[in-house]
Amino acid sequence: LNQIVECIPNFSEGRRQDVIEEIVAAMSHVAGAEVLDVQSNVDHNRSVVSIVGEPDAVAEAAFQGVARAAELIDMDHHRGGHPRMGAADVVPFVPVRGISMEGCVKLARRLGERVATELGIPVYLYEAAASRPDRTNLAEVRRGEYEGLKQEIALDPDRVPDFGPAKVGKAGATAIGARPPLIAFNVYLNTTDVAPARAIARGVRYSSGGLRFVKALGLLVDGQAQVSMNLTDYRSTPIHRVLEMVRREAASYGLSVTHCEVVGLLPAEALFDAAQFYLQLAGFSTNQVLENRLIQDE
Amino acid sequence: LNQIVECIPNFSEGRRQDVIEEIVAAMSHVAGAEVLDVQSNVDHNRSVVSIVGEPDAVAEAAFQGVARAAELIDMDHHRGGHPRMGAADVVPFVPVRGISMEGCVKLARRLGERVATELGIPVYLYEAAASRPDRTNLAEVRRGEYEGLKQEIALDPDRVPDFGPAKVGKAGATAIGARPPLIAFNVYLNTTDVAPARAIARGVRYSSGGLRFVKALGLLVDGQAQVSMNLTDYRSTPIHRVLEMVRREAASYGLSVTHCEVVGLLPAEALFDAAQFYLQLAGFSTNQVLENRLIQDE
Repeated sequence: LNQIVECIPNFSEGRRQDVIEEIVAAMSHVAGAEVLDVQSNVDHNRSVVSIVGEPDAVAEAAFQGVARAAELIDMDHHRGGHPRMGAADVVPFVPVRGISMEGCVKLARRLGERVATELGIPVYLYEAAASRPDRTNLAEVRRGEYEGLKQEIALDPDRVPDFGPAKVGKAGATAIGARPPLIAFNVYLNTTDVAPARAIARGVRYSSGGLRFVKALGLLVDGQAQVSMNLTDYRSTPIHRVLEMVRREAASYGLSVTHCEVVGLLPAEALFDAAQFYLQLAGFSTNQVLENRLIQDE
Repeated sequence: LNQIVECIPNFSEGRRQDVIEEIVAAMSHVAGAEVLDVQSNVDHNRSVVSIVGEPDAVAEAAFQGVARAAELIDMDHHRGGHPRMGAADVVPFVPVRGISMEGCVKLARRLGERVATELGIPVYLYEAAASRPDRTNLAEVRRGEYEGLKQEIALDPDRVPDFGPAKVGKAGATAIGARPPLIAFNVYLNTTDVAPARAIARGVRYSSGGLRFVKALGLLVDGQAQVSMNLTDYRSTPIHRVLEMVRREAASYGLSVTHCEVVGLLPAEALFDAAQFYLQLAGFSTNQVLENRLIQDE
């Protein structure tokens, strides 16, 4: 069947290179899972790892990473600019190919149970894997961070974890979930003025009335105005719809798009969707892509 | 390295289903090669097969198909509406992933040598695999078809095959080559009049002064005007450039594009190119496609 998932565990260590390497090594050793990318941020004191492969192998790799992080990171000594509540802070699963969101939810739940049972770490399920509506939003789950949760977990019934003890040790707590792939998409405008980029960002983003799965900011990058966006569900809010809306808003300021960029990885389907839209391929099926046929037939 | 080629052998049998099945079976049995598609045309008395997989496996499958066709098809009794000169008439190799055109040329030459040596069939190399400029064009190689070649091969030094005897048996001769993937791309216009479709086809196609790797015809399909095209090298003449030219020509008649279609298969890269163009992704690399990363790392 050739199922592929991505898992992007975030660890609360972005400074001690040896610790980061040991955690990554624990995940790299799992056959069938591939560590594609490690990005460490010193200010955040945090590392974001991308693992891709077969579902069970990726879940095993994630478990090994969580276990090693729990041994090597003491949250009582962790300081950093990014909100966090655990040594392995968040572990999202993302469907890439041949697996549904529901399949990723099952993976997340199974991993959560294992992390709780074998490592004694409190686990909160979030986003598509959430067991309660108020845990869908990660920010809500992580409220108060490590220090706050440590106090509240035993006192506040609302903070009882989905798996594991209502008690926070030095490894903190871990949020495990499932979500669509996130696409970092930036649009550059032919102006050195940040004001229109900010106004356009307000227009297209969900939080101020725009498209449901768009987060956006207006920035100046090397002196050029940029609408910087995260597309959190490209199937429901596709790239082309976002770009065309930005383009239309920019035109109302007499501005145009000089170029765009995707930062990091994105699924092939997101580009197929854009090609299908602009080429007006009404009856197109991704089954017509040669490489897809080959993979399915294997 | 994960190299993938496509081979699209054309056989001179489109009527006797049992014969077609035996030829396809001979190719299907080769491990590492996959028969994706078989299209038989009764009027042409011809079948077009698509095989995809690792280079050596695909070449082996092609050889098995050529060998079985030589046993089962007698060109002295073949009649059909499509030009042909052999039981296995043409065998093009197409690079799909991780292999260059030069790699496909080598495959074509090796297969040509083997078909000549083991089966005693005269082989002409064509398109990118051609040994002489006048054999690049398949129509030139196949001039006079089976019946004409049978007379000329021993008399005309220009018709000496690249491999094998200068003598045509009941299996005829086979053209073996390498070429880019061909994309069948049709554009529909909002009119029931075929005239503008024909004029647009003349404008965009190579043969009457248009884009180098475009063949085009204007047709009526279910009462709607269609510009029917074959894009013979999508890297040099990409889909989006063709569509935008058709769109511009149509606008000069006050017409617009209702929708488009790709008939059959196309490589993922052709759609990535279109997405990159319309999304203005100046610095984009296909290395940013999640699935590509995974495949390369395996």
